[in-house]
Amino acid sequence: MQHDPATSSTIAWNEQGLIPAIAQDWRSGEVLMLAWMNAEALALTVNEGRAVYWSRSRQALWRKGESSGNVQLLKELRLDCDADTVLLLVEQQGGIACHTGRRRCFYQRWQEQGWEVTDEILRSPEDIYGKQP
Amino acid sequence: MQHDPATSSTIAWNEQGLIPAIAQDWRSGEVLMLAWMNAEALALTVNEGRAVYWSRSRQALWRKGESSGNVQLLKELRLDCDADTVLLLVEQQGGIACHTGRRRCFYQRWQEQGWEVTDEILRSPEDIYGKQP
Repeated sequence: MQHDPATSSTIAWNEQGLIPAIAQDWRSGEVLMLAWMNAEALALTVNEGRAVYWSRSRQALWRKGESSGNVQLLKELRLDCDADTVLLLVEQQGGIACHTGRRRCFYQRWQEQGWEVTDEILRSPEDIYGKQP
Repeated sequence: MQHDPATSSTIAWNEQGLIPAIAQDWRSGEVLMLAWMNAEALALTVNEGRAVYWSRSRQALWRKGESSGNVQLLKELRLDCDADTVLLLVEQQGGIACHTGRRRCFYQRWQEQGWEVTDEILRSPEDIYGKQP
């Protein structure tokens, strides 16, 4: 895979060669999640028109939706002033961005003394990822 | 300054003791910027009801708007599933989040072969921060 020089040369990659990527629903404006990209993930995102991240826990490319089917189609890609964060406007297939089965990952809200879960589970993780025997 | 244990104990701080914080306009839904917080910045944000970040370049607390007047009033604070990113819904005073004088930091859009500036400068940085003699 050849990196797109135009995409990656401008970017201020961190010491691990990564950049945070915010995914936002292109219709509702809801912030769905934050994940990370390396140069290859960013180039793949542009070339394939879908969000491809770098999984820091698995140390591998992560085509969002590869297991769940909840693919994020790329509608718009933006870069910030310091060139160290990208913003993806996406069409969230399946309406679920979070691995917990919720619409978005930001489902906890600060309420006086603690984090309170405000969003319901739309589909169980077992149903999304398949029951483990 | 005493940290709020409830705020900070849940958080999965990175190896530098920081967490990315996304600021989103609470009315328009526009993603304004991404900055970083340490435990003190997060506690101050909650206690003072305005965005307080940790400036990695200056290695100091950064009360957003302290120089520009473009304070971000906190309307809602959210945490993601992995507890490693916070989302702030803010009222952006002055209508300008970016130090370049634009509404938001994500003013560049990917267009085929390069990053194109799509947002206009609303107020010049010289005007915001004062002319350097």
